[in-house]
Amino acid sequence: MPFEPPDVLLLGPGPSPTSEAVRRAQAAPLLGHLDPSFLGLLDQVQQQLRALFGTQNRFTLPIAGTGTAGMEAVVANCVEPGDRVVVGVHGVFGQRMAEALRRTGAQVVEVRADFGASLDPAAIAAAVAAAPTAALAVVHAETSTGVLTDLEPLAAIARSAGALFLLDCVTSLAGMPLELDRLGVDAAFSGTQKCLSAPPGLSPVTLSERALAKSAARAQRPPFYFDAALLTGYFGADRAYHHTAPVSMIYALAAALDEVAAEGLPSRADRHRRVAASLRAGLPHLGLQALVPAAQATPMLTTICYPAGVDDKAFRARLRQHHGIEVGGGLGTLAGKVFRVGLMGHGARLENVTTALGAFGLAIEQQGREVDTEGAIRAALVAHDG
Amino acid sequence: MPFEPPDVLLLGPGPSPTSEAVRRAQAAPLLGHLDPSFLGLLDQVQQQLRALFGTQNRFTLPIAGTGTAGMEAVVANCVEPGDRVVVGVHGVFGQRMAEALRRTGAQVVEVRADFGASLDPAAIAAAVAAAPTAALAVVHAETSTGVLTDLEPLAAIARSAGALFLLDCVTSLAGMPLELDRLGVDAAFSGTQKCLSAPPGLSPVTLSERALAKSAARAQRPPFYFDAALLTGYFGADRAYHHTAPVSMIYALAAALDEVAAEGLPSRADRHRRVAASLRAGLPHLGLQALVPAAQATPMLTTICYPAGVDDKAFRARLRQHHGIEVGGGLGTLAGKVFRVGLMGHGARLENVTTALGAFGLAIEQQGREVDTEGAIRAALVAHDG
Repeated sequence: MPFEPPDVLLLGPGPSPTSEAVRRAQAAPLLGHLDPSFLGLLDQVQQQLRALFGTQNRFTLPIAGTGTAGMEAVVANCVEPGDRVVVGVHGVFGQRMAEALRRTGAQVVEVRADFGASLDPAAIAAAVAAAPTAALAVVHAETSTGVLTDLEPLAAIARSAGALFLLDCVTSLAGMPLELDRLGVDAAFSGTQKCLSAPPGLSPVTLSERALAKSAARAQRPPFYFDAALLTGYFGADRAYHHTAPVSMIYALAAALDEVAAEGLPSRADRHRRVAASLRAGLPHLGLQALVPAAQATPMLTTICYPAGVDDKAFRARLRQHHGIEVGGGLGTLAGKVFRVGLMGHGARLENVTTALGAFGLAIEQQGREVDTEGAIRAALVAHDG
Repeated sequence: MPFEPPDVLLLGPGPSPTSEAVRRAQAAPLLGHLDPSFLGLLDQVQQQLRALFGTQNRFTLPIAGTGTAGMEAVVANCVEPGDRVVVGVHGVFGQRMAEALRRTGAQVVEVRADFGASLDPAAIAAAVAAAPTAALAVVHAETSTGVLTDLEPLAAIARSAGALFLLDCVTSLAGMPLELDRLGVDAAFSGTQKCLSAPPGLSPVTLSERALAKSAARAQRPPFYFDAALLTGYFGADRAYHHTAPVSMIYALAAALDEVAAEGLPSRADRHRRVAASLRAGLPHLGLQALVPAAQATPMLTTICYPAGVDDKAFRARLRQHHGIEVGGGLGTLAGKVFRVGLMGHGARLENVTTALGAFGLAIEQQGREVDTEGAIRAALVAHDG
């Protein structure tokens, strides 16, 4: 019996739902990874990724792995053992970068803020100024909390210290405009299963010439799989075999990028903003509250605090089993206290907001609390049009 | 305009062609990577991979990356900086393992044989005996040459030296029975795009308890993405988030594993052997010769030497453009002198052999040489039934 996945509306922190067109593209018969037609598609994918990252970097390509593999690629090329690296940590993905950097032998200085709070640029400036610093690393959109980091002051801090600026763009890419070149970001990684709405398994990565120079100058070569020079050998003009590109995933990514291009990134960003505002407008009617104020929050992911007495596991199990909806649980210090709602890519639609608010209301009522579900949906509809 | 891949018969060293069922499975709507239904599927995939590897290892799982990522995972967990590792090198993939090991800081001792020749067990025994050796690493089926390595004597050498035995099974898995536990193999990695006939992008990896103990005892932790302890956290009972599993690729792998189970591994191995014999029987009629004698060769991949005067690039371009067939070029010292024909998984069929021989004959004639294409096809048919 072939596996038939149950019908689940993916409103968690990723994967987001994929479109019919993306799924159809992925199911096309394979080509070889050195086939001329496939290489043409790969060039087009790289060009479209450059547009979304806001960069001219020649090294802009999908790493064959998830977002975490992209993180490893950035770390492996841009940081050497002994390098002092300042990392902003206010969520699980900042912690993860700090951990990956320590494992590569870097001297990691964490600048912390509470989960759900924003990083303090003054604290980061002080940490960078305290000693010669090779790199500053932060998360753009913290998927564990929904905090969006203002990159402008941090980019200036990195630039004036001569440090590489490394960025986790997993959740922001394709959900809002990025301007890596204007800001002077040296390395960024993302994932395909968030605002791109392609399946998980690829990590778009971009490296500046400064980052590539750092990689080339390393005393010990980076791991074979992540070595920028070897990756350039395949993705660049040489077309030298390095790994067998995940052909069907690239088909899916290409189709997803075509959808982004057809919609236009500004419209897409606007769509994400509007559905996020719509969701937020409904929450108070259900006794729910966003963890992060709208002005500091990512539009694509909203972390929501439970009212006292609502049990996280029972709530999410009810959503999944009774309503066919996936949302994310809290991570780290927030586990059990919050749930996370992603309205990303193909999933960022008003009807998903109203469906979700309706299900949230019923699942909270099921735990014996009264809520105004109708009011929540009405407020969401009004906010979306306002 | 959505990308429509041209129709190409994949008879190179991978990817191999996928079945309709595998492609349909991959196109199913996504589930979350922590969804109970998806986790059930993941358990089933792990169990089926154990059967193909011939192991009870609890750590048997698909790494989210290509075969080279699986190699990195094996290297990262099983070898530490300073470890002496003996590597059998008689092709590109042995070279690649040696290179990955050097990059991790291992002291690599290469035992070389010519590309196309077999490794000499006596030379490997001598190299292992020369100094305390942490690991012995070889390639089971060298995809760059088509040489199959006899594992029995090498496993005995590793065992008696107390060295870990590390194995590249990229091309052998699912095309022939493996018996890792019986032999005492400690770590093996494979790919999905060879005899499994799933799309490229996943790497089945298995680690023995000895290998896991080595990983746990490392002074410096392995890279985050490849750390066996963290991977166990997700694939084991804890279901702790480590990476976002490539859901649609897992669907495809599960469908491919179902096809292997339905056919039965012995029948599948027999099918691979018969089509390889069939191909070999046809070659002399075209003035072609296999690089490796049948007794030392992989059934799934046959490397074929050009007769003098046949140009590699023109031959392969003609096959691809005129006949819609992909074969592989020579790698390393064999570049330009040979081409490589994979008859793997879903592609290991008699009709592909006759189609290929017919096209080879025409493409050679196109370079002004006379061949007996009809005789080649007749010999192939006879050999297949004999």
